[in-house]
Amino acid sequence: MREVFHQSLEDVQSRLVEIADLVSVAIDKATTAFGTSDVSLAEEVIADDSVIDEKAAALDELAIEILARQQPVARDLRIVVTALRVSASLERMGDIAEHIAQLTRMRFPERAIPKGLKGTFTRMGELDVEIARRLAILLRTEDLEVADEIRNADDAIDELHISVFEKVLSDSWRGEPSATVDATLASRYHERFADHAVSISKKVIYLATGDWTGEDDSSSRSAVVEL
Amino acid sequence: MREVFHQSLEDVQSRLVEIADLVSVAIDKATTAFGTSDVSLAEEVIADDSVIDEKAAALDELAIEILARQQPVARDLRIVVTALRVSASLERMGDIAEHIAQLTRMRFPERAIPKGLKGTFTRMGELDVEIARRLAILLRTEDLEVADEIRNADDAIDELHISVFEKVLSDSWRGEPSATVDATLASRYHERFADHAVSISKKVIYLATGDWTGEDDSSSRSAVVEL
Repeated sequence: MREVFHQSLEDVQSRLVEIADLVSVAIDKATTAFGTSDVSLAEEVIADDSVIDEKAAALDELAIEILARQQPVARDLRIVVTALRVSASLERMGDIAEHIAQLTRMRFPERAIPKGLKGTFTRMGELDVEIARRLAILLRTEDLEVADEIRNADDAIDELHISVFEKVLSDSWRGEPSATVDATLASRYHERFADHAVSISKKVIYLATGDWTGEDDSSSRSAVVEL
Repeated sequence: MREVFHQSLEDVQSRLVEIADLVSVAIDKATTAFGTSDVSLAEEVIADDSVIDEKAAALDELAIEILARQQPVARDLRIVVTALRVSASLERMGDIAEHIAQLTRMRFPERAIPKGLKGTFTRMGELDVEIARRLAILLRTEDLEVADEIRNADDAIDELHISVFEKVLSDSWRGEPSATVDATLASRYHERFADHAVSISKKVIYLATGDWTGEDDSSSRSAVVEL
């Protein structure tokens, strides 16, 4: 029975990693599509999001089944509950990749990246892809250094997010309202994507160390970044 | 033991209702502050969000304790797992009320509602307040008609959300970039707030009926509304 149980927990972990890998592919394709106005790549991301949704739902059912049948306690219980939360955040990250793909499709054949912000969004996209890849590694290894790297990349995204608003609100901004809308939404999506990864990291750190410090990720951020 | 257990489940439910009531107050104050540029009311919402965060975290700990000590199965287990998910969504709704308050504070003493959109945002705010109040009733009563009302109000919000983009992207739009940014973000916040309520409603319906149909709320919506 113990052995079956540990197999189930390993199954939970490997499924989380699998979903994180899918999210990583989704954000890579979505930001590439966004940067190159590749509408067929954007369509792929939109179509594939349902796979992430289904795998997250299946993982939740497995977690509930483990709770019902094996009634874990202590750390094992925390692992299962954390898996439920992490799967919800991963599912949401998949949704955000889909939103970035939808922006690309909506503007096609125009470019979705507003003029003057190409470099900024290219860098934000690279950082989100890096974050997603590291998140999959973190879920696989529980290596706390990887969690630090995710947080550093999130800080860099936050700075870029602020710089988008500074640009759009500066006297030099010549964008049409549609470019302003696109910049606002795209920047918000990139920033939220990274936030979810940080939130997952904190849950993994907690599992690895038992330390809830800073688990609430809503308090320490500036008003500007909150936008 | 059974009696203690049912007391715990009732405690879970009453705490969810309490948090939903706090979210309801937060969105009421936030949308009032947004509509009237009342920066001190906005500050109240921002300060009070930590209470929602703390109560959600305490509820999660109670739920985990129930799982560990009482090892519920079947419907009781679903109730506890659903409570964990609902508390996460309520906490997020509180964050969104805070974001609306932050927009108000950031533009003060200017008005946060862009010219020409006063009526639209007033109506969106009223609908979000109505949705939050009905959500607390739904959590208290599990009355499925209330869930329908929430969904109808969400449909109305989605239409208003689309109308904001139509306005901002129309030839008649004379707003500065900052007004375009504000309209985009505020509309997105109002729409996401309602989405979370619909997502919670579906979970409550599932508990009441055992029907997961349509529990995934990410698939049926149009690309425009996704923005």
